[in-house]
Amino acid sequence: MTQLTELTPALQALRERVLKANLELPKYGLVTFTWGNVSEIDRETGLVAIKPSGVEYDAMTVEDIVLVDLQGNRVYGDKKPSSDTETHLELYRQFTDIGGVVHTHSRNAVGWAQAGRDLLALGTTQGDYFYGAIPCTRKMTAEEIAGSYELETGKVIVETFRTRGIEPKAVPGVLVHSHGPFTWGKDGHDAVHNSVVLEEVAYMNFISHQIRPQIGPMQQELLDKHYLRKHGANAYYGQ
Amino acid sequence: MTQLTELTPALQALRERVLKANLELPKYGLVTFTWGNVSEIDRETGLVAIKPSGVEYDAMTVEDIVLVDLQGNRVYGDKKPSSDTETHLELYRQFTDIGGVVHTHSRNAVGWAQAGRDLLALGTTQGDYFYGAIPCTRKMTAEEIAGSYELETGKVIVETFRTRGIEPKAVPGVLVHSHGPFTWGKDGHDAVHNSVVLEEVAYMNFISHQIRPQIGPMQQELLDKHYLRKHGANAYYGQ
Amino acid sequence: MTQLTELTPALQALRERVLKANLELPKYGLVTFTWGNVSEIDRETGLVAIKPSGVEYDAMTVEDIVLVDLQGNRVYGDKKPSSDTETHLELYRQFTDIGGVVHTHSRNAVGWAQAGRDLLALGTTQGDYFYGAIPCTRKMTAEEIAGSYELETGKVIVETFRTRGIEPKAVPGVLVHSHGPFTWGKDGHDAVHNSVVLEEVAYMNFISHQIRPQIGPMQQELLDKHYLRKHGANAYYGQ
Amino acid sequence: MTQLTELTPALQALRERVLKANLELPKYGLVTFTWGNVSEIDRETGLVAIKPSGVEYDAMTVEDIVLVDLQGNRVYGDKKPSSDTETHLELYRQFTDIGGVVHTHSRNAVGWAQAGRDLLALGTTQGDYFYGAIPCTRKMTAEEIAGSYELETGKVIVETFRTRGIEPKAVPGVLVHSHGPFTWGKDGHDAVHNSVVLEEVAYMNFISHQIRPQIGPMQQELLDKHYLRKHGANAYYGQ
Repeated sequence: MTQLTELTPALQALRERVLKANLELPKYGLVTFTWGNVSEIDRETGLVAIKPSGVEYDAMTVEDIVLVDLQGNRVYGDKKPSSDTETHLELYRQFTDIGGVVHTHSRNAVGWAQAGRDLLALGTTQGDYFYGAIPCTRKMTAEEIAGSYELETGKVIVETFRTRGIEPKAVPGVLVHSHGPFTWGKDGHDAVHNSVVLEEVAYMNFISHQIRPQIGPMQQELLDKHYLRKHGANAYYGQ
Repeated sequence: MTQLTELTPALQALRERVLKANLELPKYGLVTFTWGNVSEIDRETGLVAIKPSGVEYDAMTVEDIVLVDLQGNRVYGDKKPSSDTETHLELYRQFTDIGGVVHTHSRNAVGWAQAGRDLLALGTTQGDYFYGAIPCTRKMTAEEIAGSYELETGKVIVETFRTRGIEPKAVPGVLVHSHGPFTWGKDGHDAVHNSVVLEEVAYMNFISHQIRPQIGPMQQELLDKHYLRKHGANAYYGQ
Repeated sequence: MTQLTELTPALQALRERVLKANLELPKYGLVTFTWGNVSEIDRETGLVAIKPSGVEYDAMTVEDIVLVDLQGNRVYGDKKPSSDTETHLELYRQFTDIGGVVHTHSRNAVGWAQAGRDLLALGTTQGDYFYGAIPCTRKMTAEEIAGSYELETGKVIVETFRTRGIEPKAVPGVLVHSHGPFTWGKDGHDAVHNSVVLEEVAYMNFISHQIRPQIGPMQQELLDKHYLRKHGANAYYGQ
Repeated sequence: MTQLTELTPALQALRERVLKANLELPKYGLVTFTWGNVSEIDRETGLVAIKPSGVEYDAMTVEDIVLVDLQGNRVYGDKKPSSDTETHLELYRQFTDIGGVVHTHSRNAVGWAQAGRDLLALGTTQGDYFYGAIPCTRKMTAEEIAGSYELETGKVIVETFRTRGIEPKAVPGVLVHSHGPFTWGKDGHDAVHNSVVLEEVAYMNFISHQIRPQIGPMQQELLDKHYLRKHGANAYYGQ
């Protein structure tokens, strides 16, 4: 794909939403320095707007937001896209019904990712947003790390969901082993929302696990009830 | 009961107090997004003012506050009331001397609720507000969850207090198993106050429990002293 | 002693310092609601300025600060003094070289107090301000609690220091069992400073204790060095 | 070296950078009161700008920043330099490719230092900045403490890196046993950045360690990948 010289209103609006969603990360206390990134895809054109690599949040403007196609070619913007771009793109390619992706190093979520442990669905806070445990991937192999590392990170996430039979839309987040969380959603803002929830349950589950180390998940019926009252065909939460 | 077309000054004041009490939740750091709700009852008319479902705190106005009767009929306001309304109403029906109810997902309290453990009365911070352990309910059954879930949540709270012989006015809060805290008080503001205390002791008790895992409650005499110097007939705290 | 009708400039300045020191408590995150109090003594007149009972910090003015004598008689001000006044007075009577006293329910310190454990001197943060472990008192007896409880609280603090041979000036703080911390210092501001340090080391020591449960105090030489470089005759810290 | 009566623009700029870097410590929540200090060296003149001892951050101006030579003689400024100056100087003398040094008592890092435990490289957050474990020094001996204590603190840091074969530039930080963290970097600002990272991983590793007490470091290949994509000859992170 060639460079775009002018943006349609839809693509300009996409970049503005992505800027705004990126700025939500420091607002919710999810990032230190530049350790996080949000992207959003325009499914019609297949273009993804993403944060530039290593740019400070308080200096970021819409002009910094880069557009790339699904093969990773930069089609608009002067900046280099986030070094995690290939991970985002793999998620957009494989999880075809998601619209936004977020990566952070939020502190409690990273604590669990480093320990290589799933976030079990211990309570309704998680159940309102995630239909079951938030899985932790396996460790990546030496080959994967030596290869296209960021792409392979995306692949190991996809493998985790396929192997374990988890529906990405129902469980919109993952812990990458020894690394940290990725979340997704219908757009960038929604994916940020899921990052906030994931970090919150990572703290709550830490407390629960310390008090009762052998703790298991809540009953399936309760998980069904909470997830489905917000997300099912008969959802009745909200206006 | 039919729809009200005009509000008495008392009911309008009730809605304003409920708005204000709801806004105290983010002020005290008790809520993420819209995860919390405050209600207050006017015992003369039997009407309850409550937060609408899924509305953001920073956009909420008094016009969003809904009035429902004790049977759950909406009698004033355009918005759908909080999805937890039936839990609040059951508490007002059964605990006839309370005037306000709060539900949050405050993080340390949820940690204990997920672990299914009471908050023992370990110290005077709790004893100043709660006359004993803050109980955690049993798990809800599949039938209760499949039925009128929010009503059944209220019923399991009431059952916990009746079965264990706990006086709701003396212990104005509970942990619902795998879910989170509910508190109550003489009005909405007072119930929020008790939510703040409950979250604070949930953190303190976590620290104590980690340092001394077999810890038991403080001596009964100390609990009596602290609770009664603020709440008994001979209370001498405050102006 | 009779009521004062007019205050000397020194006593008026004392009240202003005590107001200011009380307002430092919320500034440093040490109090929730009205859970804390600061006093300071004027050793010449033997009068103590102290926070009123149950007054909110953000509404407090110098006119709220009460003056009491060392026997607990209110000699100036309309408000009732803090319910902990008798504890403060006992400390001023017995620890004759202290000038200010603070009580809080700061969350990590309370966590240790509820567990009934000393804050061992694990590192130089504590050693810069406290010359050894910050002791936790024994539990109070039923008789002490039923008697002049706040006075007895002061007595059990004094007993802890005398029985264990601890110099109050060198270890300007204590944990009261199942209750929380008291600190003191050369004036109210200095006592607040020590409350901040105590809360900070309570958190640090929690982390250390979790990582290494059998941890013991740092070497005596290191404690000597740090305490004495700030407090000894040859102190060389600061300007 | 004699006192400087006038400063070159380069030395004046050095002092301004050091003031700014010191003020970053409270901004990032790394210091309580005056518990921290930043310095930076001008390698051409061998002069070091450092924070004065015991001065409050909110009152600090560029005039308070002291210049000392590598032997510890004050060559400019009225204030006494930080009591930790000799530790900084030893690091500049022995680690000849560093440009800035920071010391704090940040709470989670101190928790690990008190426990005498390395911060293992559990995940990529650490790996992005530190090429391996952040070591904890041995305890200092009675002789070292009784001698030139602050100089000996620097020496035990240097010994730790030399004995264990750690490259100071690749692992720009250390925990001093029973004390707290020191970090360094290419300048003062960069060293502060590393202090923020160290504190963040101290919290994350605490969570991981609690969840999985026998946890070991991440795979070497992952550490290589993350460290080298930001710091190696073929770094590709940032603009």
